[in-house]
Amino acid sequence: MAPEKTVSAESLFKEFRSVPLSEFFGKNRQYLGYVGKIKSLTTVVHELVSNSLDACEESGILPDIKVEIVQLGDEHYKVLIEDNGPGIPEKHLEHVFGSLLTGTKFHRNIQLRGQQGLGVSGAVLFSQITTGQPTRVKSGTGKGKVITAKVEMDIKTNSPKIMDKEVYADTWRGTIVEAQFKGVNYTKGQKGPFEYLRWTAASNPHAQIFFKDPEGSKVLFERVSDKIPKRPTEIKPHPEGLEAHDILNMAHKSKARQLSSFLSTDLSRVSSQKIAEIKKVIDEERTKEGLPEFDMRRSPKRLEWNEAEELRKSFKKVKFMAPPATGLIPIGGETIKAALKNLVNPELLESLTRSPTTYKGGIPFLVEAAIAYGGNAGRQTPEGKRLEIMRFANRAPLLFDAGSCALSKSMHSIDWKRYKFVDIENSSVTIFINLVSTHVPYTSAGKQAVADEEEITTEIRFALMQIGRILQRYLSGKRKAAERDAKKKMFERYVPETAQAISDMCGEKKEELEKKLHKIVLEKFGEEFDETDEEETIGEEPTKPAPEEGGEE
Amino acid sequence: MAPEKTVSAESLFKEFRSVPLSEFFGKNRQYLGYVGKIKSLTTVVHELVSNSLDACEESGILPDIKVEIVQLGDEHYKVLIEDNGPGIPEKHLEHVFGSLLTGTKFHRNIQLRGQQGLGVSGAVLFSQITTGQPTRVKSGTGKGKVITAKVEMDIKTNSPKIMDKEVYADTWRGTIVEAQFKGVNYTKGQKGPFEYLRWTAASNPHAQIFFKDPEGSKVLFERVSDKIPKRPTEIKPHPEGLEAHDILNMAHKSKARQLSSFLSTDLSRVSSQKIAEIKKVIDEERTKEGLPEFDMRRSPKRLEWNEAEELRKSFKKVKFMAPPATGLIPIGGETIKAALKNLVNPELLESLTRSPTTYKGGIPFLVEAAIAYGGNAGRQTPEGKRLEIMRFANRAPLLFDAGSCALSKSMHSIDWKRYKFVDIENSSVTIFINLVSTHVPYTSAGKQAVADEEEITTEIRFALMQIGRILQRYLSGKRKAAERDAKKKMFERYVPETAQAISDMCGEKKEELEKKLHKIVLEKFGEEFDETDEEETIGEEPTKPAPEEGGEE
Repeated sequence: MAPEKTVSAESLFKEFRSVPLSEFFGKNRQYLGYVGKIKSLTTVVHELVSNSLDACEESGILPDIKVEIVQLGDEHYKVLIEDNGPGIPEKHLEHVFGSLLTGTKFHRNIQLRGQQGLGVSGAVLFSQITTGQPTRVKSGTGKGKVITAKVEMDIKTNSPKIMDKEVYADTWRGTIVEAQFKGVNYTKGQKGPFEYLRWTAASNPHAQIFFKDPEGSKVLFERVSDKIPKRPTEIKPHPEGLEAHDILNMAHKSKARQLSSFLSTDLSRVSSQKIAEIKKVIDEERTKEGLPEFDMRRSPKRLEWNEAEELRKSFKKVKFMAPPATGLIPIGGETIKAALKNLVNPELLESLTRSPTTYKGGIPFLVEAAIAYGGNAGRQTPEGKRLEIMRFANRAPLLFDAGSCALSKSMHSIDWKRYKFVDIENSSVTIFINLVSTHVPYTSAGKQAVADEEEITTEIRFALMQIGRILQRYLSGKRKAAERDAKKKMFERYVPETAQAISDMCGEKKEELEKKLHKIVLEKFGEEFDETDEEETIGEEPTKPAPEEGGEE
Repeated sequence: MAPEKTVSAESLFKEFRSVPLSEFFGKNRQYLGYVGKIKSLTTVVHELVSNSLDACEESGILPDIKVEIVQLGDEHYKVLIEDNGPGIPEKHLEHVFGSLLTGTKFHRNIQLRGQQGLGVSGAVLFSQITTGQPTRVKSGTGKGKVITAKVEMDIKTNSPKIMDKEVYADTWRGTIVEAQFKGVNYTKGQKGPFEYLRWTAASNPHAQIFFKDPEGSKVLFERVSDKIPKRPTEIKPHPEGLEAHDILNMAHKSKARQLSSFLSTDLSRVSSQKIAEIKKVIDEERTKEGLPEFDMRRSPKRLEWNEAEELRKSFKKVKFMAPPATGLIPIGGETIKAALKNLVNPELLESLTRSPTTYKGGIPFLVEAAIAYGGNAGRQTPEGKRLEIMRFANRAPLLFDAGSCALSKSMHSIDWKRYKFVDIENSSVTIFINLVSTHVPYTSAGKQAVADEEEITTEIRFALMQIGRILQRYLSGKRKAAERDAKKKMFERYVPETAQAISDMCGEKKEELEKKLHKIVLEKFGEEFDETDEEETIGEEPTKPAPEEGGEE
């Protein structure tokens, strides 16, 4: 064995120090999606557009978004994004743009695209690191005051710096962000900003999106629906989704004076009857261990870990109603169909919305999906049409990291041959999946893939199986119609001969006989395809009725 | 169009607040790898074992690590990890365990498994959130003082809390960590702690690892090599890998008094001749724009962004020597082979180490790989043997997220049929890939997948092609030997008959003739397989000589 010439712990720790979040994400910017020249530029567009759409949705505004990308040099671009959203109040401007995790609403239990507090400020950080330039911002809340400023981040302290701030009188409402980036590249291809916006238009048909690319080409993704999506509302946490840690935290922050009122007011679906049940479950356990009764009249401020743990355990045993789905806002089947019709004008177009359910016990989510077949559906490649899977989470396109995403994995786990669909990978098919949740479990802060939560995967698989059945029914109908048509043509071909033969035998006029024979063929084969005799794939979960669509308020 | 009932910006921002890192990662713990019951437990083991191995490596100690997992209840486990490492000095203890991103060395340009400052403290956070329990720590630096304490994190402020601290006299050296976790599950399967440690043993043959699983089964992964890996050293940044932002930061922190000495002392591979070249390149640009000469005598403290940018641009035009590879410590071909032989005892075993190169211009890395074929190589499944890809980054196993990892993607991008290997997926093959770098570009803070950096992918592909050629040569040799053997057997079968026939014709004794004929057959087919007539796959990059192995100092 080699002799040990060891280095002491003290000297190892000489270099030990604290690193601010901004420096951490500056060095590990791939965690925020800034990896690769193309993906980085798309990520910028994604973060800024998501922010605009979220702001419009929260304030009930039909979004009107302009995106412009200008090439300034080799691998050097400027991105401009303008929206007609609610604007940003003066005192919050610096935190939204100039510091990571400080301008965040992520502590709320509400369905939004963004809410991490790493999106817009992450883009500012990326711009600054690659170009040394501040981000230019213009914002007006429509109340008579407009602010323009340059925002920078002090990376050493994760704090914002505002420069050249000007405030002037104007009733303009909206936000304009202008930032430069180096080491990035623009592509019109599959992973580029154009494709990102095309997908965004598909999942946000209530938005009008104008795009000008670096070559000066302009495209307008027109608004297909005038329905403003329902405003997202905060949902109180459901007991089944909580861990002892969460219960403890919530109890200590609660304004309630007794544990019982804390449970009924701060959580959803906890009635006084449920409180009695909870107490009963806990007391049964306590009796076994010779402990006193659980006191529901204590102050929640004094709750201790072991009591929180008792509550958590009891929550698993008591049956609660599913969390309210009011906070979940699907795009809606008809709206998705309108968007896809506009986008790919397919031969077959169907959508479905699954009932809301929960993962991790209490986080509500639902899956909506659509299929487009034929027409311009599918991805056009030099080798022909390929399957296109459009993944979305809370309407935000997921263009990257398909390999680690539960949505793609579910797609590939389906045996499409069961639905008599032999080669779905090489077909003119677009499948649209949108995961709607108050808390999407992304695999990383780059928010491009959904983590493998069992309940989510199961729901997506059910949605895809329904799609499989829709496709099977359609194709089987098409096949039968084609067979019928072929038979009909064959019979019709023999009509003149048959008519002649009968005429020869019985003397009736050939022309009359031909007419009669044509009528018989028509009666036999001309009617509409009868749906009753189709095959049903069995052994699968039945189709549940879809909940109400998200529409205007 | 629906009338707009908009909500004002002010009311939208009412809920706006700052979130501490600990709360952020507490809610998004999947970013740190804590997702899924099995993966979460494996992640705990990964973080704590990586930390032990890193510490031992940095201090030149042959690691002796004990891991014990005890089941305390349903989905409730205790993990104990003990090492003989350098220990943690008293004043650093709280930060290593009790606060995120503060106990970090990640600002250094050095090859380590960990260095993010999210590993051990992330595990403490996960333990605390799921059980409310502090983490127990015992640490001794071998200098006569041992500390035991309980550490907790104040999640609201990301700051550590030390409880029940005791300090007593003892010369014991090492660290013991004991923490509880709920909502996790133990498996002996493919993604569990046992498999993680098996892989760790394969990539760290200098470590002795003892494991006791929840059922009480004990396994000892014995030390296969007594070579202590070279101590990782910090490498000065290479000019080609720097962005203007980095140059500016480094310059402002530099102790050098002039830009020229800053460049030559704080960067690697910048000689005085290179400084002259840099100045020439910048001055040529400046002349075009009518600007004065670039002043190399200025203080680096005063460097401005546009000058840093000029430096960055010139770094792309001047040719520098590749960064020194002294900071890169491969496991070494022979060591990997010894480990794999011990693990799967294969029929064919080859390893290769590629020359060091860089990605993003200046971050040094190298790829080493090995192939094991036959014997116990491959993954045993109920349906038979399957290809096993063992991915490592700086010797740390990458068990998860294969779908988004550049290592797996490169593997699947190889057309194995070119190497006459038809069905590699269903073969008894283990492929071992270790990416060695001073900065591994992980896709997320969970550190289970390597991001798609073009140069890295290219190097891995080259390594795999070399493996393809090794495999092809071996299998072709095996095939030819088998053919030869079959021919030989066939000829031998006819020897008695032929001998009889000749004997009948010429009268010589059959036994004598048989002996002669056997000799002829042996001479023709008995010799060793001749390597000169094998096929070579052409059109591929030639094999570079491997650099020296990392060995003891």
